Amino acid sequence: MGKLQPAKNLQINHDRLEKRLRSLAKIGQIEETGVCRLALSKEDKEAVLQVEQWMKEAGLSTRIDSFGNLIGQWKGEDDTQPILLVGSHIDSQPYGGQFDGTIGVLGAIEAVQTMREQGFQPEKTIEVIAFSDEEGCRFDKGLFGSRGILSQLEEGELDRQDVEGITRRQALLDFGCNLDEMEQDVYPEGRIGSFLEMHIEQGPILDRLNQPVGLVTGISGPLWLTVELKGFAGHAGSVPMSYRQDALVAAAEIITKLRELATEDPNAPTVATVGKIESFPNSRNIIPEHVRFTIDLRDIDMERRRRIEKKLFEAMDEICERHQVSKTIRIDTESDARYCATEIMDDIRAAGKALFTEPLPEMMSGPFHDALAMSSICDYGMIFVRCKDGISHNPKESARYDDISLGTELLYRTMLLRSGAKKE
Amino acid sequence: MGKLQPAKNLQINHDRLEKRLRSLAKIGQIEETGVCRLALSKEDKEAVLQVEQWMKEAGLSTRIDSFGNLIGQWKGEDDTQPILLVGSHIDSQPYGGQFDGTIGVLGAIEAVQTMREQGFQPEKTIEVIAFSDEEGCRFDKGLFGSRGILSQLEEGELDRQDVEGITRRQALLDFGCNLDEMEQDVYPEGRIGSFLEMHIEQGPILDRLNQPVGLVTGISGPLWLTVELKGFAGHAGSVPMSYRQDALVAAAEIITKLRELATEDPNAPTVATVGKIESFPNSRNIIPEHVRFTIDLRDIDMERRRRIEKKLFEAMDEICERHQVSKTIRIDTESDARYCATEIMDDIRAAGKALFTEPLPEMMSGPFHDALAMSSICDYGMIFVRCKDGISHNPKESARYDDISLGTELLYRTMLLRSGAKKE
Repeated sequence: MGKLQPAKNLQINHDRLEKRLRSLAKIGQIEETGVCRLALSKEDKEAVLQVEQWMKEAGLSTRIDSFGNLIGQWKGEDDTQPILLVGSHIDSQPYGGQFDGTIGVLGAIEAVQTMREQGFQPEKTIEVIAFSDEEGCRFDKGLFGSRGILSQLEEGELDRQDVEGITRRQALLDFGCNLDEMEQDVYPEGRIGSFLEMHIEQGPILDRLNQPVGLVTGISGPLWLTVELKGFAGHAGSVPMSYRQDALVAAAEIITKLRELATEDPNAPTVATVGKIESFPNSRNIIPEHVRFTIDLRDIDMERRRRIEKKLFEAMDEICERHQVSKTIRIDTESDARYCATEIMDDIRAAGKALFTEPLPEMMSGPFHDALAMSSICDYGMIFVRCKDGISHNPKESARYDDISLGTELLYRTMLLRSGAKKE
Repeated sequence: MGKLQPAKNLQINHDRLEKRLRSLAKIGQIEETGVCRLALSKEDKEAVLQVEQWMKEAGLSTRIDSFGNLIGQWKGEDDTQPILLVGSHIDSQPYGGQFDGTIGVLGAIEAVQTMREQGFQPEKTIEVIAFSDEEGCRFDKGLFGSRGILSQLEEGELDRQDVEGITRRQALLDFGCNLDEMEQDVYPEGRIGSFLEMHIEQGPILDRLNQPVGLVTGISGPLWLTVELKGFAGHAGSVPMSYRQDALVAAAEIITKLRELATEDPNAPTVATVGKIESFPNSRNIIPEHVRFTIDLRDIDMERRRRIEKKLFEAMDEICERHQVSKTIRIDTESDARYCATEIMDDIRAAGKALFTEPLPEMMSGPFHDALAMSSICDYGMIFVRCKDGISHNPKESARYDDISLGTELLYRTMLLRSGAKKE
């Protein structure tokens, strides 16, 4: 269970949680350990109805809204206060794993059920949510349910089609949604006070640290660039090195430099990736004339990211000039980091302090989550649970039930603090 | 005309040569300046018959052999001596230029015609040859005619098909070749004493040096590798830099190192190229797991090339180990350099000395030529003529008629020396 040994016995019900997770993983199961539960599909509906059943067992009053979100409510002593929303998603990638999203929904239900069993009553209303279509694979646009309740859907989103030509509108209708209710299903401004999400890390940090859970400090802001370099083709055998304008050599130096810049401070969580590269004419005995590649740079510290950007652009200028290669740089995405609320992080730290003998490891999230959408209207906090080798979006995705229980216990204790729960 | 000013008037007939080159360029002409004269095509046949006519005008007795080679003979005083073979090819790339190969054939004919007009009689028999299918585009295997007369064709070569399903056998028959004569068309061992080829440089060196012609010292030996690197994929946002096994970062460092090694001695003609690269899964937010790229390393100095190879392999070991990336290296081609014969180079230098006020620039050839096949059975020498910007295998290929005349004059004077020509 790693270095972060729990100091006390857990209050949540480990066996019940594991049983539910195993049961949910059977809906849309692929291979030994994977799932394919595309948003608004038959399997997704089956899963939503099953999870709704568990919500009811936890004493929540449930509804499926017009966006396909499953919401279970526990009215607080003072329902006029901004509510505490907790959850994640249960739809999956087409070739996905069984823990991505699901632990955040079933963990929240388990936390609520434990609160009741322990005789707590929240001051603020708690809602548990399984967001509709977080993954975005089917209609090529994700965070649908979370953007839906925030009134952040874009023009024409309901007309998007899946590979079979089914529109999202039709899929929602088939799912049983009443599209006329969309407007009233949007949460009024100020209604949601804070949002909590537990999720598998989808990265290898906790696994390497040998820690079961971690505290997320924010979702890093990605800078996405597409760089196009134009040199001059020539016969690989006849153009002397000093005459060359080799676009691939320039690209290689930029890739090397990008890694150097991202690792300058070895303790920083900065990550930089060139994931895609294409070279033309891409023939073994012709000097590459044209190379196109992407850059993905993320950091939780925007000042540091901007410093790196500046150095990167200077380096690209120098490299391209030296190789007499012209360049075009397109900015595809430039998002700022979204920081978790200090108050919520303090609550999670406090909950962790009561639970573990040492402080929680803290980390940023590289991938997006429903929490990213929620961050635009309320404070948010996230808990990460270790997953084996950091593998996700793959049937090989794997997490330990012991770790999930620890994360859920941490979520439960945080919810006690955030909801103003009191023993009756 | 560049720094290499001719010291004397030319003996060859500039206008006749230019007229023939312009006339040949019309056969299979594409765009303003290009040609498409695929081997053994209708256009190739028309060109061969035209060139045969000019050979006859130069006093040569002609034949088209069973490989499709056009050969014109001038019997020497002593035909028992090994002959002097001179020539190149007149077939072209599908999207080719008008000077590639042609200047070596028409230049040789012009040289012979000038010898006659100047009253020379060679001691050794001279043969001028337009080799069949040097380019190899149509049946994906070149140097056909030169390998044919050396009995170096491979099993099944006549069964190779072009894109329309026509076999080389059928194409040869349609061209008018008698396939039963192949054996007797092979030159007996020792029959060819030396081979001379004039060709456009297909590289930018002479153009940069502002020199019209150059002396080739050899055809460099290429080392062709395919390198496959295997790292580990992961989310670009969630895997810390220090945990990564990024195959593209490793590839980028190897590409950078290769260039560094090839330019260590700035005066050496070593060239190294990564012309082809492919990355998997090639997605902007996934760390590249698998990268495959080619390496093309050429040098005229085999010892230096082997030293660079050794350093390259050591660097690849170090880079892959540092990035925890595994590698597979396949050797696709490993040819030794083929040096031009010292005696022939001395003759070309001597001819150049009589013709120019300064020594000829000397250079290796990166690309292959028919001379490469010939080098396996006889001494050979090559003369390069400058081409604009080094562009070749492209309709934009361009050379000055003045330069071609200087190259032809140099070829003519070299042929006088090599054939033991005497005024009658």
